Amino acid sequence: QRHFYGYTGLTFAKWIITITIGLLVGVVAYLVESSQELFITMKKDWTQETIDEGIKLPLVFLGYAGFGIVLVFMSSCLVLLWAPAAAGGGVTLVMAYLNGIDIPSFFEFRTLVTKIVGTICTISSGLPIGQEGPMVHIGAAIASSLTWMHGRFPTHRRDGSQRYSSPFLQTISKFTQKAWPFDFHNDKDRREFISAGTAAGLAAAFGAPIGGVLFSLEEASSFWSRKVMWRSLLCTTMATMILAWLNDRDFSLSLPGGLAYHGIQVEVDLDSVPLIMVTAGSLGVLGALLNTVHGWLSQYRAPSKKGLLRVVEACSITFIAVGTMFILSHLFGRCLPIQKGQQGEEYWFRYTCPKTDPNTGIAYYNDLATLYFGVPHETIKQLFAMGSELDTYFSIRSLILHSMSFFVLFNLAYGVATPGGIFMPSIMVGASFGAFLGRVFQVYFPGENIQPGLHALVGATAMLGGVFRSSLSLVVIMMEGTGGLQYLLPAIIAIYVGNWVAQHIHHEGAYEADLERLGEVRFLQSEPPRHLISVTAAEMMAPNVITLTEIVSVGDVIKILKNTQHNGFPIIRHADANDEGQLVGLILRHQLLLLLEQRAMIEVDSDMLYLPLPERFIARNPRVTKEHIYLEHAMRVYHHCHNPHKRYLSSRPEAVDELELDAILQEHPVTNGVHEANSKENGSANKEIQEGSDSAKSGQQVSIHKRELALDLRHYMNRAPVTVRAECSAQRVYIIFRTLGLRHLCVTDSNNSVIGMITRKDIAQSSHHQKEHSEGKITLERQE
Amino acid sequence: QRHFYGYTGLTFAKWIITITIGLLVGVVAYLVESSQELFITMKKDWTQETIDEGIKLPLVFLGYAGFGIVLVFMSSCLVLLWAPAAAGGGVTLVMAYLNGIDIPSFFEFRTLVTKIVGTICTISSGLPIGQEGPMVHIGAAIASSLTWMHGRFPTHRRDGSQRYSSPFLQTISKFTQKAWPFDFHNDKDRREFISAGTAAGLAAAFGAPIGGVLFSLEEASSFWSRKVMWRSLLCTTMATMILAWLNDRDFSLSLPGGLAYHGIQVEVDLDSVPLIMVTAGSLGVLGALLNTVHGWLSQYRAPSKKGLLRVVEACSITFIAVGTMFILSHLFGRCLPIQKGQQGEEYWFRYTCPKTDPNTGIAYYNDLATLYFGVPHETIKQLFAMGSELDTYFSIRSLILHSMSFFVLFNLAYGVATPGGIFMPSIMVGASFGAFLGRVFQVYFPGENIQPGLHALVGATAMLGGVFRSSLSLVVIMMEGTGGLQYLLPAIIAIYVGNWVAQHIHHEGAYEADLERLGEVRFLQSEPPRHLISVTAAEMMAPNVITLTEIVSVGDVIKILKNTQHNGFPIIRHADANDEGQLVGLILRHQLLLLLEQRAMIEVDSDMLYLPLPERFIARNPRVTKEHIYLEHAMRVYHHCHNPHKRYLSSRPEAVDELELDAILQEHPVTNGVHEANSKENGSANKEIQEGSDSAKSGQQVSIHKRELALDLRHYMNRAPVTVRAECSAQRVYIIFRTLGLRHLCVTDSNNSVIGMITRKDIAQSSHHQKEHSEGKITLERQE
Repeated sequence: QRHFYGYTGLTFAKWIITITIGLLVGVVAYLVESSQELFITMKKDWTQETIDEGIKLPLVFLGYAGFGIVLVFMSSCLVLLWAPAAAGGGVTLVMAYLNGIDIPSFFEFRTLVTKIVGTICTISSGLPIGQEGPMVHIGAAIASSLTWMHGRFPTHRRDGSQRYSSPFLQTISKFTQKAWPFDFHNDKDRREFISAGTAAGLAAAFGAPIGGVLFSLEEASSFWSRKVMWRSLLCTTMATMILAWLNDRDFSLSLPGGLAYHGIQVEVDLDSVPLIMVTAGSLGVLGALLNTVHGWLSQYRAPSKKGLLRVVEACSITFIAVGTMFILSHLFGRCLPIQKGQQGEEYWFRYTCPKTDPNTGIAYYNDLATLYFGVPHETIKQLFAMGSELDTYFSIRSLILHSMSFFVLFNLAYGVATPGGIFMPSIMVGASFGAFLGRVFQVYFPGENIQPGLHALVGATAMLGGVFRSSLSLVVIMMEGTGGLQYLLPAIIAIYVGNWVAQHIHHEGAYEADLERLGEVRFLQSEPPRHLISVTAAEMMAPNVITLTEIVSVGDVIKILKNTQHNGFPIIRHADANDEGQLVGLILRHQLLLLLEQRAMIEVDSDMLYLPLPERFIARNPRVTKEHIYLEHAMRVYHHCHNPHKRYLSSRPEAVDELELDAILQEHPVTNGVHEANSKENGSANKEIQEGSDSAKSGQQVSIHKRELALDLRHYMNRAPVTVRAECSAQRVYIIFRTLGLRHLCVTDSNNSVIGMITRKDIAQSSHHQKEHSEGKITLERQE
Repeated sequence: QRHFYGYTGLTFAKWIITITIGLLVGVVAYLVESSQELFITMKKDWTQETIDEGIKLPLVFLGYAGFGIVLVFMSSCLVLLWAPAAAGGGVTLVMAYLNGIDIPSFFEFRTLVTKIVGTICTISSGLPIGQEGPMVHIGAAIASSLTWMHGRFPTHRRDGSQRYSSPFLQTISKFTQKAWPFDFHNDKDRREFISAGTAAGLAAAFGAPIGGVLFSLEEASSFWSRKVMWRSLLCTTMATMILAWLNDRDFSLSLPGGLAYHGIQVEVDLDSVPLIMVTAGSLGVLGALLNTVHGWLSQYRAPSKKGLLRVVEACSITFIAVGTMFILSHLFGRCLPIQKGQQGEEYWFRYTCPKTDPNTGIAYYNDLATLYFGVPHETIKQLFAMGSELDTYFSIRSLILHSMSFFVLFNLAYGVATPGGIFMPSIMVGASFGAFLGRVFQVYFPGENIQPGLHALVGATAMLGGVFRSSLSLVVIMMEGTGGLQYLLPAIIAIYVGNWVAQHIHHEGAYEADLERLGEVRFLQSEPPRHLISVTAAEMMAPNVITLTEIVSVGDVIKILKNTQHNGFPIIRHADANDEGQLVGLILRHQLLLLLEQRAMIEVDSDMLYLPLPERFIARNPRVTKEHIYLEHAMRVYHHCHNPHKRYLSSRPEAVDELELDAILQEHPVTNGVHEANSKENGSANKEIQEGSDSAKSGQQVSIHKRELALDLRHYMNRAPVTVRAECSAQRVYIIFRTLGLRHLCVTDSNNSVIGMITRKDIAQSSHHQKEHSEGKITLERQE
């Protein structure tokens, strides 16, 4: 390895990739944000123009809604027909991936494209859905795409037949080998980049470099280290810097701060704490309610398999949302005059209000329509900026109508088959309802110095707390996003109260609840459930284990691979014929498949397969040949080429059929006699085992041998599989499993015999009992 | 357990304790800060007055220095005579404690008192030493004191003799049992509170609630969870709130922000990035230099055993520091007029400058004296506030003299025998040198918009990065402390560049270097050193293991306890006489000591001790009696009463002598004959084993028995000790050991025989090789 000031080329490449991820994420974030702004402003202007031209409101509404529905239709068709993994926010699945769960096609390129296009369409359509969750997925997918695994994978089998049937794939494989000199041949590197990409995604969405890192640390990533922290920070910094530059075109180093506002800075004193707590508590209730309603509604949603129904669902919810906005604005919106101190003149939306009075020069706006039709992050900024003096921005009636209708629509929209996240709508509901409460407090406590903007900020933070149940990251995101560091302590109070209240209404955050609904995804939280302390490994494990011996017949292996879906097989050695066998190693399914595919078979006496191996044979370490090294390398490459995306493929029975083994098995039938065995002795791989069987021969003085095709697993197995004793506490098992990122854990007795296996499934099942237990519905039921 | 809305009394108590810790830490922080301010202002005023009275400067200097020396003398005497653990910053040892290392008397009450008093004395004396490190220790010690372990520990032995000789101790023990209903009977709870206290300490020192939590997460704590995050955040919030209130006496919710300044807010643009990087790089070099010089100087310091020398060292360094300040200010300080825009009139120090001109009304100040003699955090604020327009605050000459002399004095003072930390001096040097560079840039690039205050901020951040090598926490602390969120991106650049440069000069941060110097402390970083991937468990372990059998003679146990210092002993079972034995459990030293002390002995045939146990005897699970439960409880209580503070006591041979076992061994000599054995059968604990030996009898038909006193360990041993196979990668061993917080790890072969033990010592030794390796001095040497 080349060294340059302690940096190998690989390290350098990693930094370059990190920076590239950051820059790309920043550019995409800008693209998404500015498209949304463009579309929404265009629609608003069009509406204003057509209304001014005297076209009737229902017709305007149909036009507006039609445009939105077309966007949502495109987005959901794209998702359902091309990349189903792009639906929803995606944060949950990023979390699952970083937890060590394989999610088919989640990071594929078409998913990434669909997510970007779909998000732009959805957030421009009028649905109360945001871009923050999708940005996290996009960041992770960009990171994944830039670190795609490609190794020097053998293109030919050992017997000369070609591995890749398509010449196109062969060319690609050769090309990637040369074009890019660095292999990221392990899951760890990949995971680190994806953690960094996740952080960058959120950072770009909010303009919050530190908040993004903390979000990745607190919520998204399951494995964290100092190195990941540095890399994420670099990535988020790059993303925010490029975003700031694209926004201003003037390379300013000040934060883009997606929600930054120029509010009136008031001192917050002790007296206001009770009111702040009331606001935070109310929004905590709303946050928990969102989770509850979402869980309840998801039963009635269009089933995930019926694509057409899901498209119809998405489109009709868009129709309802736009309809609500038009009708409520028309009926209840108040026409207020634009005052001189108010910023951003183009933001205020006149809708059906009277035009600017030519005499007085006073312009009017419809406050409810402004709340609905403005660019969402502009609306949030305006809510945060509501001061105690310029208190006529939005009327109390409009605020309550807006927050409640938005909450209902949000509940409807959260879960439709388009990309879209729940960060922004949560903040919107929180800010709007918080501002409403602030206005109400102003009325009831006229003597107090109450700033509705502060209550909006507190409300938004508490709502986020109620929905997501995170702590630090949300506070930091809000502080960085709004630039309101002076309100740090109120924000911390808000996050505490919001969380605390929400925890008593609905016991799970949005992500955890989502993870649970995804039945297939077996997420392991960083800490073991408390109840596991009274469970042992023996109660947790799956007791019937399929084991192999060190030298095993090919026929048996094929049978086992076809009939089970296990991915790991313990290897045992029998001391004598009656012994139940002791654990000596572990082999993985893909290793077996590769051995079979590469025809790394040997011919041995049948005796060797079914009797304990002779002692001389065991004591000696097997000789390592070039052949073994080559195969071991091939296994590693295979693992890293296929596993991140296609792990699930190898556990189908067809995976074995594809190896075309029948011909070989027919060519090498079970044979009799010493003669034939000797004639085969020229193969390089079976030389050594021949020796072994020689010694067996001399020991046992056998005259007639049955010869069989077999695999010698001793070179390839993991000789030190992690084991626990049957009496071990399940909590400990959980921690070992989780921190080492294991897939298989052997449970042994004091004799070192395998009595069970623990996989992610078993752990997730045992952990699940706690939930039922804690809800008090079902008493703890131990697995027998 | 009582439940109230899902909260048990224990949970409630924990929250109350957390809040109390936060409040106490905030109060102490206020006390320390305001005493420092009081003393320093007093000294400054006295100096000014005496100079104005015409007393000669050398005499004034002697008075000033004398006062400082008296303070340092008091402080260092207190440390050396009463509580040696209070010396230095303490952050390193807090880290070590939270890593699972026992540090004698580090959290005792007298250490806490000494630390508070000593810190106040030291930082008021004129030594360039800060209060931030000590505040971390104080926070941790307050947390520890509030969660002191006290359990219902038996006051009598089983034979009726009293456990505590002193009646005073007995009373205390009875009292604590009643007064406080909650026991925190495990290390985990304790560690959580101490993590929270640590966070609160730093938060209070800087007025940075989130920074404190991040510091605890990133640097101080080795075990972290969501719960700890919530608890720490509450604790830091409380500390900052009470501090803010005490500072203002007006319950404002705005941050106290220890370093908050009212600087001119300029836009930082792309052009300034190169200069920012130059500043950050220079300060990174200084930061690394500090670590290098400190390591080198520590050889020449007064040896830690010679108390008098250390006091003399501390006092003379104070003398040198004050002398430097007086002489340099007098010779090189410039007399500048106080301009109208300058804030804080009482801050500016006139020293030997002319008095206010009665005609023009212009007041003068000596800029170098102001830098030296002001309250440190005021000085830092002024440096940060240096704008591009009011650019005459400090002259270039004074800034370079101040930063360089402060750096030298800081190097001298860092390591003397008084409490004191290196956060503040690092920030001071960084800010001062950064401001100097900013001023120089102003001269050389007159066209650019350069703000020396920004360079001071960047310099301080980069210096911290160079000294401590942290990332997020330092940035957040600086942002919260200064309130300058708009300079987040420059601060991130500074931390990156500072770290990167420093890493190439000195490979370790201040804390890591300190940890390494403390030979006894075997700190395990959160990630295994990279080189461990090529080491196996077998190469790491200590091969000669002392094992016990399930039933073991008292004589043997005493011999082993006296002659070894091991804390854990594997228990093995022999299948037959020739068998090397299989691992069935693990017992700890304190468990053996307690069994001996409580006289939980049984009498068995000698055969039972030295031959494999009969099969019938093993198959059956031993019956559990009240006696066993009582003893097991006593073991747990003993562990938690003694371990946090006195773990080291039990590994002395005297610990065995104190049990006064000789009399018992003499009373129960090895006896012969069946008769006597039967007459002893009335003891409750030996009933069952009697049965066992009965069955042995019937099996073997022995006529004459040798009877011996023995311990039956089967009830008390850990039946599922964590084991690894000899071939297991050392990296994996490291991770298992570190995350499970183990003290002993048995290494087994495929037969489940114990072939070695791995303790913290072995792991620390193996990990250490890497350092030598990475420095390129010594090639990797594997342990055989």
